[in-house]
Amino acid sequence: MDTIYTYQNLYNFTYSVFKHIGCSDADATTATTALLAADVRGIDSHGVARLSGYVRLWEAGRINSHPNIHIKHETPSTAVVDGDAGLGLVVAPHAMQIAIDKAAKVGTGWVSVSNSNHFGIAGYHAMLALQHDMIGIAMTNASALVAPTFSIEKMLGTNPIAVAIPAGNEQPFVADMATTTAANGKLEILQRKNAATPHGWVQDKEGNASTNAHALKHGGALLPLGSDRDRGSHKGYALGSIVDIFSAVLSGASYGPWAPPFPAYIPMPENMPGKGLGHFFGAMRIDAFRPATEFKQHMDNWLQRFRNAKPAEGYEKVLVPGDPEREMEAIRMKEGIPVVESVVNDLNEVAAKFNIEWA
Amino acid sequence: MDTIYTYQNLYNFTYSVFKHIGCSDADATTATTALLAADVRGIDSHGVARLSGYVRLWEAGRINSHPNIHIKHETPSTAVVDGDAGLGLVVAPHAMQIAIDKAAKVGTGWVSVSNSNHFGIAGYHAMLALQHDMIGIAMTNASALVAPTFSIEKMLGTNPIAVAIPAGNEQPFVADMATTTAANGKLEILQRKNAATPHGWVQDKEGNASTNAHALKHGGALLPLGSDRDRGSHKGYALGSIVDIFSAVLSGASYGPWAPPFPAYIPMPENMPGKGLGHFFGAMRIDAFRPATEFKQHMDNWLQRFRNAKPAEGYEKVLVPGDPEREMEAIRMKEGIPVVESVVNDLNEVAAKFNIEWA
Repeated sequence: MDTIYTYQNLYNFTYSVFKHIGCSDADATTATTALLAADVRGIDSHGVARLSGYVRLWEAGRINSHPNIHIKHETPSTAVVDGDAGLGLVVAPHAMQIAIDKAAKVGTGWVSVSNSNHFGIAGYHAMLALQHDMIGIAMTNASALVAPTFSIEKMLGTNPIAVAIPAGNEQPFVADMATTTAANGKLEILQRKNAATPHGWVQDKEGNASTNAHALKHGGALLPLGSDRDRGSHKGYALGSIVDIFSAVLSGASYGPWAPPFPAYIPMPENMPGKGLGHFFGAMRIDAFRPATEFKQHMDNWLQRFRNAKPAEGYEKVLVPGDPEREMEAIRMKEGIPVVESVVNDLNEVAAKFNIEWA
Repeated sequence: MDTIYTYQNLYNFTYSVFKHIGCSDADATTATTALLAADVRGIDSHGVARLSGYVRLWEAGRINSHPNIHIKHETPSTAVVDGDAGLGLVVAPHAMQIAIDKAAKVGTGWVSVSNSNHFGIAGYHAMLALQHDMIGIAMTNASALVAPTFSIEKMLGTNPIAVAIPAGNEQPFVADMATTTAANGKLEILQRKNAATPHGWVQDKEGNASTNAHALKHGGALLPLGSDRDRGSHKGYALGSIVDIFSAVLSGASYGPWAPPFPAYIPMPENMPGKGLGHFFGAMRIDAFRPATEFKQHMDNWLQRFRNAKPAEGYEKVLVPGDPEREMEAIRMKEGIPVVESVVNDLNEVAAKFNIEWA
């Protein structure tokens, strides 16, 4: 029972909500654009599905809708930014712009952010670099749902990494991935359907392999990319750890099991070692390495060669990171964005709360 | 039938070999130290096991033992280095030093390298940053053994990523991982034993799951970290691609299926789009973000918390990236380094060729 909305319809509504919690026009625009990038790209768990969650965090006093986002320390190629408890959707583009400005001056820019909140999809922020002929990098830590290899304790978030790389005539390379076998959003879809997960996504509270989509509610955990030790879960664990350290230990945010939870009803961890969630952004100017036109010609060659790699039987073609989301975007901008019933109900509640009229 | 050698014994022999192929004293020292870092850390596939391979590449004219390693282009935070077909074991520490020098000046340094060769273990180069209170990053592309998700064509190398992060009283965090489910060296160990691989390491020539350690010889391929689409192999494929692009497309090295093969008897690919193998290095000064002592205190806290995470039944403790290699190093520096018979035979052949007397 999905309801189909146009992009503009969801945009107007989301913008109104951000205005109602006190965002400036500029910040509401920034946050809405960042949030809806998830919906149009098909990452439904990170778009309007989270809007009511942001509102609840604001109600709980954990989101500051008029933050003083500021640089705490910097060098020519680096900065540490304090997000002042702002929406991650606002803090992240601000910090990414600092990285881009530094890259314009000295070749690369690297910004670690403390005291922030959930920033939507990492890929959106990484892609902000593309229009400047730069490679963009974005990552964030998140509340702990993932058990390290050999452990039964939830110590890391799904800690995504996104890398966007410009091309010439071809569409850009855009990787955006949780460092777990499956993103939590994919698990939530199976929970709604009461369906089993594939092997390797979750473990139960004793650390045994499980296919129960509800395993996390019963003391289980998401598994790092690789699933188990034989299949390299120590690598996914290492990747998630690197994201945690770059995002939170470098910046002074709260890390590991102390990362603040997204649901406002979950109490904050005790003895937090830093402030809020952390992010990490990078921008590398292509022509700090080689002429941008030359690089883009080779990226076109790279992309064409990989898209033309010989597919296995039963598969039409080989994809390049970013292709599925781009195809989804083309469809949804034309045909509209389907929203599941539980999220529609959520949005309607928010609409009622703020007395917003909408579709 | 392993033979046990002391570090010093292998060092002296390896140094002699590099001198015999024409390396300067300084380069032979650099190359030997980098190569043996693999043996002491237990990554047996990348140490003296490859020495005869380097010699054969030199004999084939593909390694230049007195290279003019030089910067082709630079900005305050970046450089592109031409390795002049030198040993990767020499080119890589040189390029890493450039990254470190740039980080000392402007906060971070990023160096992409073309026209190089196999550089040993990525972790060694990343760890060079630690003594400078910097985070070190190292990656390299490699000859194509890995099929992208949905493909049966070998398009990427095992393309490792290493990240070394300093700590205070605790030992540093050192991740060093192939972006495949299993490194090729682990596959080679099973090949020697004629043993089956765990599920998810390789596919056969039709793209079907396989546990045949010899699958690669019969048209099969290594699988990206994640193993298959359901378990996130598109993420391992994306990671390997990022390494390929940062190392080779940014620098002007040869990329993807055109990366030069390590075995000297395999002809070079036709129509190579760049020169040699590519690497990518990064150094980030800790105090470009926050005071180093403060960061290290939090890293100690991070490391202690993760090492004390609750282990699953049957496991004594949870490890942190770098722990297993460090434990191995302590053992091998004390008890010696075991070398398998086939590698001993290889080394003896090299010794005979150059008339080197050794154990």
